[in-house]
Amino acid sequence: MLNPRNVTASAPGKTILFGEHAVVYGKPAIAAAVDKRAYVSIQEREDKKTHVTINNIGISGFLNIEQGTIELDNGENNEGILKYVLIALMKTGSKDGLEITINLDIPVGAGLGSSAAVTVATVKAASSFKYVKLTRDEIAKLAYQVELIVQGSASPIDTILSTYGGIVYLSRDAEKIIKLDIDSEIPLVIGYTSKRGNTGKLVESVRLKTESNPQVMIPLFNSMEALTNGAREALTSGDHKMIGEFMNINHGLLDAIGVNTDELSKMVYIARKKGALGSKLTGAGGGGSMIAYCPGKFKEVIESINEFENAFKLKISTDGVRLE
Amino acid sequence: MLNPRNVTASAPGKTILFGEHAVVYGKPAIAAAVDKRAYVSIQEREDKKTHVTINNIGISGFLNIEQGTIELDNGENNEGILKYVLIALMKTGSKDGLEITINLDIPVGAGLGSSAAVTVATVKAASSFKYVKLTRDEIAKLAYQVELIVQGSASPIDTILSTYGGIVYLSRDAEKIIKLDIDSEIPLVIGYTSKRGNTGKLVESVRLKTESNPQVMIPLFNSMEALTNGAREALTSGDHKMIGEFMNINHGLLDAIGVNTDELSKMVYIARKKGALGSKLTGAGGGGSMIAYCPGKFKEVIESINEFENAFKLKISTDGVRLE
Repeated sequence: MLNPRNVTASAPGKTILFGEHAVVYGKPAIAAAVDKRAYVSIQEREDKKTHVTINNIGISGFLNIEQGTIELDNGENNEGILKYVLIALMKTGSKDGLEITINLDIPVGAGLGSSAAVTVATVKAASSFKYVKLTRDEIAKLAYQVELIVQGSASPIDTILSTYGGIVYLSRDAEKIIKLDIDSEIPLVIGYTSKRGNTGKLVESVRLKTESNPQVMIPLFNSMEALTNGAREALTSGDHKMIGEFMNINHGLLDAIGVNTDELSKMVYIARKKGALGSKLTGAGGGGSMIAYCPGKFKEVIESINEFENAFKLKISTDGVRLE
Repeated sequence: MLNPRNVTASAPGKTILFGEHAVVYGKPAIAAAVDKRAYVSIQEREDKKTHVTINNIGISGFLNIEQGTIELDNGENNEGILKYVLIALMKTGSKDGLEITINLDIPVGAGLGSSAAVTVATVKAASSFKYVKLTRDEIAKLAYQVELIVQGSASPIDTILSTYGGIVYLSRDAEKIIKLDIDSEIPLVIGYTSKRGNTGKLVESVRLKTESNPQVMIPLFNSMEALTNGAREALTSGDHKMIGEFMNINHGLLDAIGVNTDELSKMVYIARKKGALGSKLTGAGGGGSMIAYCPGKFKEVIESINEFENAFKLKISTDGVRLE
């Protein structure tokens, strides 16, 4: 008997460098894929059932692709990330009878886009398992649809970064995706809290503020647009000081629109104190994570944050989704 | 022998509610006089020397009005607030031979405008001592000139508030001063750190940022203008929620332009957590003080800040400079 066929695909998580929240108002953003990945392996099962195990977070269960149902092994009701896997399998036209193993290298709830990475890797693995070759563009679009179905609303940023990798400038409504030609060794530290923000609620609260005081709020999104465009230039030319300054301004603007927290602020300020040229919350806010731009100061910044939260060095992943 | 003639004048300190730093760029601000005052008493001395004692901060010394010199009693070189007194005496055409006692009810270095209050009260006391009656407008202008001479540069806001009292909307370059008809019982708490910001350096750093990235920074000052105008309406109509929201946005914008600190941020966030509807740093930043708008939550907010810094309830003073 031959060894059973095994297809493994992986996709990176992401972090937003500039422009989060402003994208909702048609402004550009800059995001980067990070070298923390989701690995999705698919093998055939003889019993025509479909079973998924997610290592690292200890979730497993049976999926029924045909009927679109999930039954967790431990009987609990925490379907979590399995929903993304199910919808990704349905969207790729997969048939039941699969044993799927997921290794998640990305901390969940740290704003690093773990769900998008799992979705993109599942789309790639499932299509490859069927000998279907999708273009990156097709993968990104399918994965975005999966996120939309599971979450009700979604930003295309996460799935684009998990698919393409690298550092990407996304123009208005992500209509144009420009890979930036930047040294992938940009000196970033990420710090994250155990407290998780609710993206939907945060976006809604910003929308309400903007509706009640457009004359106050719209200039802030214009400023975010200008600084994202300025940061694109600074990143390309390697102007460390200016990259840091734009991060600091962006952080204040995110505080102004109401998505900063005490915990994030504490990490942001301690990073600057320990030598970071700039630091900001990243992603939706209300908890989650912050990034610090700290050439030559990794150790000091990581240690100081680790005294009360979690931090590690963030390497950019030039590789997007790939077969292993 | 008759009792020696004694003239006492007092003037309040101030706090900036909205628009600090933006005023440098021709934007409006809202500031309030607070019920912490400087009291300046003048009596004649027979020896034709002029001596000043500032209680509360333990500074005293001989001034020579004619020659414009200061000699501290303790021989130290810390002339501090005595310079304001000397220049105010010179500007009012006072003659040597005065015994001056100053009682300072305003914490120094908390951003509450103690130097302006001392200056305004000295101008009033010294002119009254000479039987000269100055209008409020004349007092504010003279006191502003004193601050300019002592500091090299100055905002007219402090001396205007110490002179007029109340809550004041200052239009572009303080050309127009509009007293707002607002309940003086607005529910404010002030918290201040022992760390003092350097106003001149902070204003300069904001100017450099603005020069290097006008497209990022100018929208922020436009937003501050819109929120100061919005806050004027909200204060007049008593819209508590909106006053708080404008404070929060203003704080984030002050963080964005780089004048916030870790210590201020901590106070600002704990105030919100303890029920303040809004909170912000006030004044130049880089240390100094913050204010919180907290109807019905004074006790909780003050207690929580007092655990690590200093806080007290701030009452608005409707009275400006006055004879006691």
